[in-house]
Amino acid sequence: MFKAIVSASTLQDALDSVSVLVDECKIRLNEDELSIRAVDPANVGMVDLSLDAAAFESYEADGGVIGVNLAKLEDFVGMASGDELVELELDEETRKLNIRMDGLSSTLALIDPDSIRQEPDIPDLDLAAEIVLEGAQLDRGIKAADMVSDHVRLRVDADDEAFHIQAEGDTDDVDFELDADDLIALTAGTADSLFSLDYLKDMNKAIPKAAEVTVELGEEFPVKIHYAVAEGQGNVTYMLAPRIQSD
Amino acid sequence: MFKAIVSASTLQDALDSVSVLVDECKIRLNEDELSIRAVDPANVGMVDLSLDAAAFESYEADGGVIGVNLAKLEDFVGMASGDELVELELDEETRKLNIRMDGLSSTLALIDPDSIRQEPDIPDLDLAAEIVLEGAQLDRGIKAADMVSDHVRLRVDADDEAFHIQAEGDTDDVDFELDADDLIALTAGTADSLFSLDYLKDMNKAIPKAAEVTVELGEEFPVKIHYAVAEGQGNVTYMLAPRIQSD
Amino acid sequence: MFKAIVSASTLQDALDSVSVLVDECKIRLNEDELSIRAVDPANVGMVDLSLDAAAFESYEADGGVIGVNLAKLEDFVGMASGDELVELELDEETRKLNIRMDGLSSTLALIDPDSIRQEPDIPDLDLAAEIVLEGAQLDRGIKAADMVSDHVRLRVDADDEAFHIQAEGDTDDVDFELDADDLIALTAGTADSLFSLDYLKDMNKAIPKAAEVTVELGEEFPVKIHYAVAEGQGNVTYMLAPRIQSD
Repeated sequence: MFKAIVSASTLQDALDSVSVLVDECKIRLNEDELSIRAVDPANVGMVDLSLDAAAFESYEADGGVIGVNLAKLEDFVGMASGDELVELELDEETRKLNIRMDGLSSTLALIDPDSIRQEPDIPDLDLAAEIVLEGAQLDRGIKAADMVSDHVRLRVDADDEAFHIQAEGDTDDVDFELDADDLIALTAGTADSLFSLDYLKDMNKAIPKAAEVTVELGEEFPVKIHYAVAEGQGNVTYMLAPRIQSD
Repeated sequence: MFKAIVSASTLQDALDSVSVLVDECKIRLNEDELSIRAVDPANVGMVDLSLDAAAFESYEADGGVIGVNLAKLEDFVGMASGDELVELELDEETRKLNIRMDGLSSTLALIDPDSIRQEPDIPDLDLAAEIVLEGAQLDRGIKAADMVSDHVRLRVDADDEAFHIQAEGDTDDVDFELDADDLIALTAGTADSLFSLDYLKDMNKAIPKAAEVTVELGEEFPVKIHYAVAEGQGNVTYMLAPRIQSD
Repeated sequence: MFKAIVSASTLQDALDSVSVLVDECKIRLNEDELSIRAVDPANVGMVDLSLDAAAFESYEADGGVIGVNLAKLEDFVGMASGDELVELELDEETRKLNIRMDGLSSTLALIDPDSIRQEPDIPDLDLAAEIVLEGAQLDRGIKAADMVSDHVRLRVDADDEAFHIQAEGDTDDVDFELDADDLIALTAGTADSLFSLDYLKDMNKAIPKAAEVTVELGEEFPVKIHYAVAEGQGNVTYMLAPRIQSD
């Protein structure tokens, strides 16, 4: 069984973080939280979303798994505005999700979870550097890199205690440097990796500009990017595989 | 002869109600009102617009009929902003419409009225139910229905004193229920009909969100939707033929 | 050598005036001003931009010439917002332009100036009429003309002391008349010429609505349109060749 009431914006922000990577996903309706893990078809970008029971006005679940088309679910939830409450209820018999809000009742057919790409394991990585910055700063660096290239280099300069978002195009370059004053926090370490901008741009779409974003970075290693949602009662973690740097 | 002065927004709102259905129309320049009746090429949706002489700053006409290209006329009127006054004058000799506003004089070639599809007769129908609601509510129901289907069912539940805007898609359903508290007025009666969403969406584009909209509904019968324009000195009536409900 | 600091909006507005006509241009880095002259590929529209050293926070140059891709340069400058300062520095060795702003360093490859279309000579013309008007008025006239035709007639009526922006389409006409009250100033003279709307629309995109725009007009002669930028410390002049009026 699953029955929950949640503000439309909380649910929408959470779903957005997943729908930038995949069209369909499994949603785990655990007793104490709703969670989604998904990986894009090319196995390059992963997302791990958890939304605590406390993020909901009310939440009852017993560990089921449902499969959903995210665009459809977001359309339905999008009929509610801002803080309007949305009620979700699983009809076990018909395998449909009932979505109710002020006057409007919708029924969304679910997808067989077995038909959805398997959930990825998001590994624990021991990454040397950790950067904490505003979503708006990450956004600026990604936009700058996107002007000259289709990949971006994230790098920590341990000596200068600075984080660099860099891109080298065929003719033009950009280097966005954030030092201790620009960052919320920095644990400097040897860290320098190259990533596809397409994925990072997709992830960036979902990251609120005002969010406090933590970037964990290594040397030619995947990057982990995480931030809180639902006023701290939920969490989004992205992991993105590196591209090999040519010399 | 025809010569009139009217605020740009009044004229634009009135023309919008027609241009969502047809590209060209006849305009009847009656002594006491300007009126347009038109039907779409498939004979499914009709509109009847009347704009009283009182809706104009000044109005002189003697019963002529002109044919216009609505997009062009709206472009010309659109050069004026908001409450700016627009002067319309028919040049009988050249069969052109002179359109004047602050500094700008335009001449719009008219279309031979005989070349325009005949004006429909909009029948008096004795429809069992009458629903009065805000344009914004109708808009919400239509948007919800559009997520799952290309047709929509309008239905009055006489027992519950409620109006339903419903749609059944191949896999998903929506039901937008408006009860006595949500409606401005309801005359309940047996009423349940299915309509093409394409037409209803077009009509909805022209209906102001703040308008008080009256919906007259029957059992597998056309629906009539009407609302006031020009602060009550004009009226728009849409009529839309039903689709046959399959069982 | 070239090194300058300037507010992003000042630089962007100046570059916009050129990029509406051409994709690439030469920039002359004179000791006392930065200047650009360019002509479109069809030799119909020309622009002459000058930006005094005083328009910059700081400015050092010794007469060099660089070639730039305007879209790229505008992208880079566009990363700064509003009054944020942008630093430009020419790297003589690599022939690249370094662009720096709060945290962000970009390097833009320059184009060989010899590969760019030659700068036009913008002739002194003795034009009979001079009209000074708000950018917003010019914009309105151009928008109106664009509804009915692809060329526009600019005309001064010396008797009525009025400036006309007119267009005759196949079926419809517009005439936007600005008299002494609507204009900032008018030196009436025999002036009546026809121009391509495509070019005038492009130029109009760059002209601020609030700018005081001077139009110099003759009889089947090119028109000159100029306005100040950088709070009077710069100037843009457009020249547009006439189309021959058919009778």
